Amino acid sequence: MREVFAALDGSSRAIVGPGDDAAVLAAPGERVVVTTDTLVHGPDFRLAWSSGTDLGWKAAAVNLADVAAMGARPVALFVALAVPPETGVRFVADLARGLRAACDALAPGCAVEGGDLTISDTLTVAVTAVGVLDGALPVRRSGARPGDVVAIAGDVGRAAAGLSLLFDRFRDDSGEAVPVVTSHLTRREAAAMQAQLRPRPPIASGPDAAAAGATAMMDVSDGLALDARRLAAASGVTIALTSGALGTDPVTALEGGEDHALLATFAPDAALPEGFRVIGEVRPEGAESLLVDDAPYGGPGGWDPYRDWDRHSG
Amino acid sequence: MREVFAALDGSSRAIVGPGDDAAVLAAPGERVVVTTDTLVHGPDFRLAWSSGTDLGWKAAAVNLADVAAMGARPVALFVALAVPPETGVRFVADLARGLRAACDALAPGCAVEGGDLTISDTLTVAVTAVGVLDGALPVRRSGARPGDVVAIAGDVGRAAAGLSLLFDRFRDDSGEAVPVVTSHLTRREAAAMQAQLRPRPPIASGPDAAAAGATAMMDVSDGLALDARRLAAASGVTIALTSGALGTDPVTALEGGEDHALLATFAPDAALPEGFRVIGEVRPEGAESLLVDDAPYGGPGGWDPYRDWDRHSG
Repeated sequence: MREVFAALDGSSRAIVGPGDDAAVLAAPGERVVVTTDTLVHGPDFRLAWSSGTDLGWKAAAVNLADVAAMGARPVALFVALAVPPETGVRFVADLARGLRAACDALAPGCAVEGGDLTISDTLTVAVTAVGVLDGALPVRRSGARPGDVVAIAGDVGRAAAGLSLLFDRFRDDSGEAVPVVTSHLTRREAAAMQAQLRPRPPIASGPDAAAAGATAMMDVSDGLALDARRLAAASGVTIALTSGALGTDPVTALEGGEDHALLATFAPDAALPEGFRVIGEVRPEGAESLLVDDAPYGGPGGWDPYRDWDRHSG
Repeated sequence: MREVFAALDGSSRAIVGPGDDAAVLAAPGERVVVTTDTLVHGPDFRLAWSSGTDLGWKAAAVNLADVAAMGARPVALFVALAVPPETGVRFVADLARGLRAACDALAPGCAVEGGDLTISDTLTVAVTAVGVLDGALPVRRSGARPGDVVAIAGDVGRAAAGLSLLFDRFRDDSGEAVPVVTSHLTRREAAAMQAQLRPRPPIASGPDAAAAGATAMMDVSDGLALDARRLAAASGVTIALTSGALGTDPVTALEGGEDHALLATFAPDAALPEGFRVIGEVRPEGAESLLVDDAPYGGPGGWDPYRDWDRHSG
């Protein structure tokens, strides 16, 4: 396992890092934010498409985004990794490298501070992320008020476009995943693929939004339409979006998941932090929790990995 | 899933509990302790032997013990549960009830504050536990000094005796696990079985030991002999145990795992907290890291779930 530990060596920032019964983390402000999210081989990824490094990156990114969505700064990841008995140490080391690379790129100061490696028939990466609020109040889903602006930071729809490409072009005749050959892709397609395999949620925008007084915030993991409805329901409001603000493919932006953008609301007079753009407004609760261009939105409304991924494992 | 949520309903003690992007926990003293440990169907449990409730209990107990072993008070569990598609909701609800029951019994004030349910071919329960130090310093493995007394709180060897019973009496001719019939057991045997299926580590003794000035502490999960060697190595000392202090079956006490007792060292003049009993002393580092009755200890030295459990799943 030396190779696995080497991949993480020197990255700990904790008071007590890996190696004791538990890690000890500093919690300035006396509040911590904790979340857990799991990637499972089959519904969440294919090994023909994702390298160990991709997988580690994505497992980190999705959890970092949930911490950021509370307005917190991620400080530590804990990883429960279950691998089939035939898995090579190289793969596990690559996964550790991916976790570390995502922390370094998206949330500098955050590191893997503990974990657990077990044997299982199904490759599973369960990550728990811990963040600190540095004295700020957590930003919940429930604080949006009529008159607030609705803003977003990060991509919407790009990861879903990448997933469509994988399904359309990188499967064999029986539907099994085959390795991605990037030379077949346009630059735009390659970027979409990268957004699917190594999403880059705007982690620093989370604490920035909290500091700017965001009234509500959440991570867009299941599609903007579905997650906007959730925020609206939690806040008891209607969210009205403008499709013209959603890029060149508003339907994919509304329905595609896995980008992990940050959806936030701000008082109308607040200065939006860098990275956020206005995509709509908050209205009093009406019959519909979501309007797009002032009309009820009739799309399927979101992302269900057990619907959109088939049951092949790849 | 209403049944699953009902099993946990009302138990949250967090500032923000389940339902948002992440939970928010109070961290008095500005330090938190975090650990993660996973139970996997096959190496860690058999469904013929463990009910959903047993499994939830054990998954909680092993993680609570790691928090306690740092001298911390557990405040929250986060559970990444991966279940085969055919698993009934009832089983998942039972598991949630077991998690809650263990918190209530062993660490009142601790609750499940978040989690994640996914589909996998292998039933896997990954728990991350968070604890707070209430201003105390964490107790590491590395602080034992020559002259300290070695003490233990909790059972040693009882869970291993229970596992032997399961393997000896509750398997069919082909080695597959069969359900436990407790009416076949003596009172002592039933207690051993219970220690295996629902261990009761002395969680409150962890913070008590920290308050009493414990110089080093760890959770005995892999057998007293192996874990005492680990503590000795981390501290750069030799640990000398007295077999007469280890009950009626010192070999099982030294080699059996999974009781999750707390092994601690204290300065010779410290008043031992309730629940701890002296089992030896700390000596300067010698050729052997562990002595039993002043002789090198030649036993296999510990517990390896992948050795002692076979590959059947049950």
